[in-house]
Amino acid sequence: MGEVIENEESIDVPRPDQCHVTHLHRAFSPNIGADSALIVLNQEITIPRDVFISLWNAYGLKICADGGANRLYDISPTLVPDYIVGDLDSLKPDVKQWYESKGVEVIKQSTQYATDMQKAIDLVEVHYHYADAQERFDVSSLDTYDSLLTLHSSLNKTSRPQMLMVGAIDGRFDHTIQSISVMLKRIQLSPDSPIFFLTRTNLIFAIPKGLNYVDYTKTTFQSYNCGLLPLAGDTRLTTKGLKWDVIDWDSSLTGSVSTSNRLVGTDGIVVQCDKELIINVEMAHY
Amino acid sequence: MGEVIENEESIDVPRPDQCHVTHLHRAFSPNIGADSALIVLNQEITIPRDVFISLWNAYGLKICADGGANRLYDISPTLVPDYIVGDLDSLKPDVKQWYESKGVEVIKQSTQYATDMQKAIDLVEVHYHYADAQERFDVSSLDTYDSLLTLHSSLNKTSRPQMLMVGAIDGRFDHTIQSISVMLKRIQLSPDSPIFFLTRTNLIFAIPKGLNYVDYTKTTFQSYNCGLLPLAGDTRLTTKGLKWDVIDWDSSLTGSVSTSNRLVGTDGIVVQCDKELIINVEMAHY
Repeated sequence: MGEVIENEESIDVPRPDQCHVTHLHRAFSPNIGADSALIVLNQEITIPRDVFISLWNAYGLKICADGGANRLYDISPTLVPDYIVGDLDSLKPDVKQWYESKGVEVIKQSTQYATDMQKAIDLVEVHYHYADAQERFDVSSLDTYDSLLTLHSSLNKTSRPQMLMVGAIDGRFDHTIQSISVMLKRIQLSPDSPIFFLTRTNLIFAIPKGLNYVDYTKTTFQSYNCGLLPLAGDTRLTTKGLKWDVIDWDSSLTGSVSTSNRLVGTDGIVVQCDKELIINVEMAHY
Repeated sequence: MGEVIENEESIDVPRPDQCHVTHLHRAFSPNIGADSALIVLNQEITIPRDVFISLWNAYGLKICADGGANRLYDISPTLVPDYIVGDLDSLKPDVKQWYESKGVEVIKQSTQYATDMQKAIDLVEVHYHYADAQERFDVSSLDTYDSLLTLHSSLNKTSRPQMLMVGAIDGRFDHTIQSISVMLKRIQLSPDSPIFFLTRTNLIFAIPKGLNYVDYTKTTFQSYNCGLLPLAGDTRLTTKGLKWDVIDWDSSLTGSVSTSNRLVGTDGIVVQCDKELIINVEMAHY
């Protein structure tokens, strides 16, 4: 069953030589010049407005998934995304008209065999595929059913930009779990191009299986509450840098889960896991 | 990989002879005379006020977990619970004083090795253990650290009342997942005494592994959106009564998850699973 060790409120945690590193400050400021995308989903935008605006300015591409455009409009009509995509059953006509008048590409893809979130992710990758090749992405060539998705599948090399999504969590619970599923499959496919979810109370991200260092040198996350959530399946965990560190500790939703834990490493934490892991950090002090 | 079948909007789904049955109307009206408990956790109460009041009247025992009492007080100070329990780091002094003046038993259990939700569940079972035996539960004999939990462990037979919780989902994401973990372990231990979670947009419950019938004869859930969420681990699913039924379909968070589905069985659905399953039904029309 392993062991739990209670630590002081601040401990040094050396970064291992060979490990996967997740930089949490990248959620708020993607590398300059690197491909990145902010996706707004159809949930009320509950993160503080100044944080949202700062993210808007930090990210390269901005996409609203269907009714996400309504939510963006509610925050500020002067924030103009690059695209609106989805089956468009939620997009309000006046919002559609407003953004079209501002030059936004509105792409209807009506298939019910992909979620609006998936359509937005595929669009990000198709967009950057053409942009990186300095070719023109001709939106008018798309049908209104699923040709964006078939175009995406046909690309033999897609760019995998870092993404941040707002509105992925806290709505319908099946949507929340679908979002987590997308995040887990992404980290399996592309561990160095993470997806982050930001909510009113959480930053959520995935780490790949193996030895990990989660670096928050450039943020102030020490002392923040967190949870290590075995949503990719049962896993054995060893950590360094949590208030309650675990050693060779079996974690599963039908067994033990490390929740209400706390980041006490000064600059980061070490996590060893044999399945991908979801981690949330409480954003109590935006 | 199995098969997906798209159904009409309304189909008859016979209830199998031998199966576990979950009655969804019980979430809103527990069996009269049966032990039942409503637990209010420390999240803003976002379900409609009339629904909350009706639940308050339908359930036997009412317990606030720590700051849940603040949330109840915000709804109406005249709703008086039986107990307030937890480490009491969130309970406001004036709220504590108010409820104490109304005769509420306030039980401090400061251990950090159990969540406030777990303390509330243990209290429900201890309370009904004594009540069912027509013995007196002497709250004054408890210490303020963890003696409620040790008392609970020492009981050789505990009552397992049906419970409904508000505030279990939509807060900090590690709390949400901890809530799901508690629900899954409960259905393993005691499949006939379910826990329901109610949120602004969801009714959430678990079903045991095996052949299940989810009965909503006495509610109006047909046509409601739903998801089948394999949070106890990878499972093979066969269903009857969904808009998109699945047959021998492997479901996992790193593979496929049936979300944005819809209840089309007239009175219920059949679900066969080889792990416990979490199901959410959208409460769009309270």
